[in-house]
Amino acid sequence: MNPVSYTASELAERFALGLHGDGDIRVAGVGTLAKAGPAQLAFLANPKYRSQLDGSAAGVVVMREDAAAGYPGTALIARDPYSAFAKMSALFEPKPERPAGIHPSAAIDPSAEVSPLAHVGPFVSIGARSRIEAGAMLGPGCVIGDDCIVGEGCELVARVTLVTRVRLGRRVLIHPGAVLGADGFGLAMEAGRWLKVPQLGGVSIGDDCEIGANTTIDRGAIEDTVLEEDVRLDNQIQIGHNVHIGAHSAMAGCSAAAGSAKIGRYCLIGGGAGVLGHLEVCDKVTITAMSLVTRSIREPGEYSSGTPLMDNRSWRKNAARFKQLDAIARRTRGGSDADEG
Amino acid sequence: MNPVSYTASELAERFALGLHGDGDIRVAGVGTLAKAGPAQLAFLANPKYRSQLDGSAAGVVVMREDAAAGYPGTALIARDPYSAFAKMSALFEPKPERPAGIHPSAAIDPSAEVSPLAHVGPFVSIGARSRIEAGAMLGPGCVIGDDCIVGEGCELVARVTLVTRVRLGRRVLIHPGAVLGADGFGLAMEAGRWLKVPQLGGVSIGDDCEIGANTTIDRGAIEDTVLEEDVRLDNQIQIGHNVHIGAHSAMAGCSAAAGSAKIGRYCLIGGGAGVLGHLEVCDKVTITAMSLVTRSIREPGEYSSGTPLMDNRSWRKNAARFKQLDAIARRTRGGSDADEG
Amino acid sequence: MNPVSYTASELAERFALGLHGDGDIRVAGVGTLAKAGPAQLAFLANPKYRSQLDGSAAGVVVMREDAAAGYPGTALIARDPYSAFAKMSALFEPKPERPAGIHPSAAIDPSAEVSPLAHVGPFVSIGARSRIEAGAMLGPGCVIGDDCIVGEGCELVARVTLVTRVRLGRRVLIHPGAVLGADGFGLAMEAGRWLKVPQLGGVSIGDDCEIGANTTIDRGAIEDTVLEEDVRLDNQIQIGHNVHIGAHSAMAGCSAAAGSAKIGRYCLIGGGAGVLGHLEVCDKVTITAMSLVTRSIREPGEYSSGTPLMDNRSWRKNAARFKQLDAIARRTRGGSDADEG
Repeated sequence: MNPVSYTASELAERFALGLHGDGDIRVAGVGTLAKAGPAQLAFLANPKYRSQLDGSAAGVVVMREDAAAGYPGTALIARDPYSAFAKMSALFEPKPERPAGIHPSAAIDPSAEVSPLAHVGPFVSIGARSRIEAGAMLGPGCVIGDDCIVGEGCELVARVTLVTRVRLGRRVLIHPGAVLGADGFGLAMEAGRWLKVPQLGGVSIGDDCEIGANTTIDRGAIEDTVLEEDVRLDNQIQIGHNVHIGAHSAMAGCSAAAGSAKIGRYCLIGGGAGVLGHLEVCDKVTITAMSLVTRSIREPGEYSSGTPLMDNRSWRKNAARFKQLDAIARRTRGGSDADEG
Repeated sequence: MNPVSYTASELAERFALGLHGDGDIRVAGVGTLAKAGPAQLAFLANPKYRSQLDGSAAGVVVMREDAAAGYPGTALIARDPYSAFAKMSALFEPKPERPAGIHPSAAIDPSAEVSPLAHVGPFVSIGARSRIEAGAMLGPGCVIGDDCIVGEGCELVARVTLVTRVRLGRRVLIHPGAVLGADGFGLAMEAGRWLKVPQLGGVSIGDDCEIGANTTIDRGAIEDTVLEEDVRLDNQIQIGHNVHIGAHSAMAGCSAAAGSAKIGRYCLIGGGAGVLGHLEVCDKVTITAMSLVTRSIREPGEYSSGTPLMDNRSWRKNAARFKQLDAIARRTRGGSDADEG
Repeated sequence: MNPVSYTASELAERFALGLHGDGDIRVAGVGTLAKAGPAQLAFLANPKYRSQLDGSAAGVVVMREDAAAGYPGTALIARDPYSAFAKMSALFEPKPERPAGIHPSAAIDPSAEVSPLAHVGPFVSIGARSRIEAGAMLGPGCVIGDDCIVGEGCELVARVTLVTRVRLGRRVLIHPGAVLGADGFGLAMEAGRWLKVPQLGGVSIGDDCEIGANTTIDRGAIEDTVLEEDVRLDNQIQIGHNVHIGAHSAMAGCSAAAGSAKIGRYCLIGGGAGVLGHLEVCDKVTITAMSLVTRSIREPGEYSSGTPLMDNRSWRKNAARFKQLDAIARRTRGGSDADEG
């Protein structure tokens, strides 16, 4: 289904890589060192897999200079073999055809603007005053509400919903089931009943962001919820209203940031981790998986919470003692240096 | 896109608020104290933001009587400024047009009843014997299965799925991607394979409930899964089969209640928190974020589990000791008063 | 809406069960012991509910031989009453009509193959080179991308997305909002920006798997993400790229497995639990709810992490001490036997 192939020499030239061995070897796909065949490209980045190299049947392997010493096969030499592999493997990725034009089934408000260079797939609806720019792709079943902008080269794979006042920059990639611009969770208790607080803000997504499947990003209450450029969100993430995430930060699956949390640039939020509302996390902070950020973080570094995994019987014994920890500390005269830090 | 505007006097009269200063000032939108302009309405609820008031360019600010003392601008006086602001801001909320009628693309079973006063959007399907009542709005791509009821004034924003036997009361608001009435997770192991337990119950949602984006509520195994009136669920929440949630309770994003859990009235479940199956949580219980409820709770109050956030290095040292906690306790003669409570 | 009914004798014969009492009693549905009426079937599996039996108005009750002693009503006798009940209750489950054939609104690529015995509902799209086999049901709004296979007897209830290169075995049941085959979260940092790593693998799902509502399963980076046969996933689960899950394992709601994790056969992963990437969990491991698996597990058994639920005031006192745990241990001369296990 994609017949493209390249010789080692062609790849070396195209990606400015060094070449050892037979440059005429032709590859038509990628594989792992362990399983790749003679017509496949593989990579060796982590020295601990060096041993797999000798047994590998891969036609071409991209690796660092040092690793290639004494390797009899065809090697492409890169300072960062993984990045080089990533770029080359894009040549072999089958892409669905998404020709410019509007599928006859699409339901588009007369006041919406759709570029003739955009792709609008089947069962897509586009609301009032929304704009779809050149090269944008709206896959099957996408719902674009009112007053939204889908920037140049954005790809909404399928069944993506932009509820209202969602503005996407350029080249934003959004996976199926993601919902951007739904009401934030704004409630006030009045006379024993919940009073809904209208959510009048929007969502602003910077260039080159990626948003995972079934991830939700609520719109702001008054001002916008903001992702700066090149933010990467995995699947099943929840971003509350008025959250601000700095450029180049990444969040792993099932993590969450509550309302008005501010996360800096180049942060890494682990899977299932949570950031409470109205906190600030500075640049270059890593939060390990399933940790809960309960206070603002002002120093770059790695932060964690939680307890280690144990067999259930040991865990029960130790966990029961957690309830006595303060008493235990006092018995050890630990009472003095208590630190709520 | 919405040209409505109101004078301070009009707002004071309409919402029964006090008025200080120039009643003829006209506002056409809302803003924060810090950023609102002369044509915007802002609010001051928390005294700690009083300082922002002096620098605010907001045309009108709603506040408590005491806060208004010496304020030279135009103030609306409310006992609860936040609630008053919430109600007034609804005046400025742009609402998508959802005229009564059925979009020609909708696929509706002949045995379904759709009120002529309901809105049925594009790519909506409605199954056998389902009923859509007056004023209900089904946004683009909603899927209503068999034997469902969508009550008066309900709004299903877009891409909401009611699988089967889901009954919504009046004015229920459901955000995109929510799935109500899917099979509960009922399994029995038989001869080394899973046997699926049919889920014959339904889902019953009370009046004025709100259900967040990508939230899932399974139908009951034999009887129904039930949300009483005015329950508020945020995004990405999982409600297992036969869960019962009392009136006016709210759950924050990514929280979950497992099968047959019973949560009382006026409970607040924090983000990412979990309630195990078959437990009972009494009225007026607050569970803090990412806590796990492993036993029934019979006293109102606030409950928590977990450990504080630390820099990773300190955390590793302390977490390793958690495995020795029982031994440590015994060494401090803590062995005697162990309490599994 | 489903008028089927059966006599106790008919059920006894059909399911090879013992019969005590009047075999002519006819049931047309199921109920709980507590609430079932004379025309309903109930079950008694757990002896602790024996007391409910006496007060039950159920027309027929399935139970173990011993429980039936002295029971005056009509009893069906089974070694495993719960399994027997599950099978019988399937007789009473209303199933939506899904006749073979393709809804006129469906958008199907000319290169796709759809069996004349498959059901394709409204607003379904099917991509290039995909195959839908006999007896498969694609409910409203399903999106099948390129190069997918939906095996015999699969049921995609509604709004299920198979992005690309997703191969389903036979009788796979997938609930609404599930997304299979989206890009894995593959990123490399290069010159201060994220470089996307193409995801060239697919997803392979074995026979008889069940996948819950809004669950996401990413496709592999190079090789496939794999679920073996009879794997059962609840709602809101995240499965990262290249995860491998062994046959007959089950994961409860909101749990997750990160990239390249390998989970064995007959494992039970509790709700909200997480398994970090590149770990191996052997067969027959149970992980309790909201535990985090941070290391490979090589012994079958039950494993846990976390701390017990406490009232918030006690929790704050004890949790603060967690930060001093290493110091406390040293004071008790626990320093020596530290065990990072």
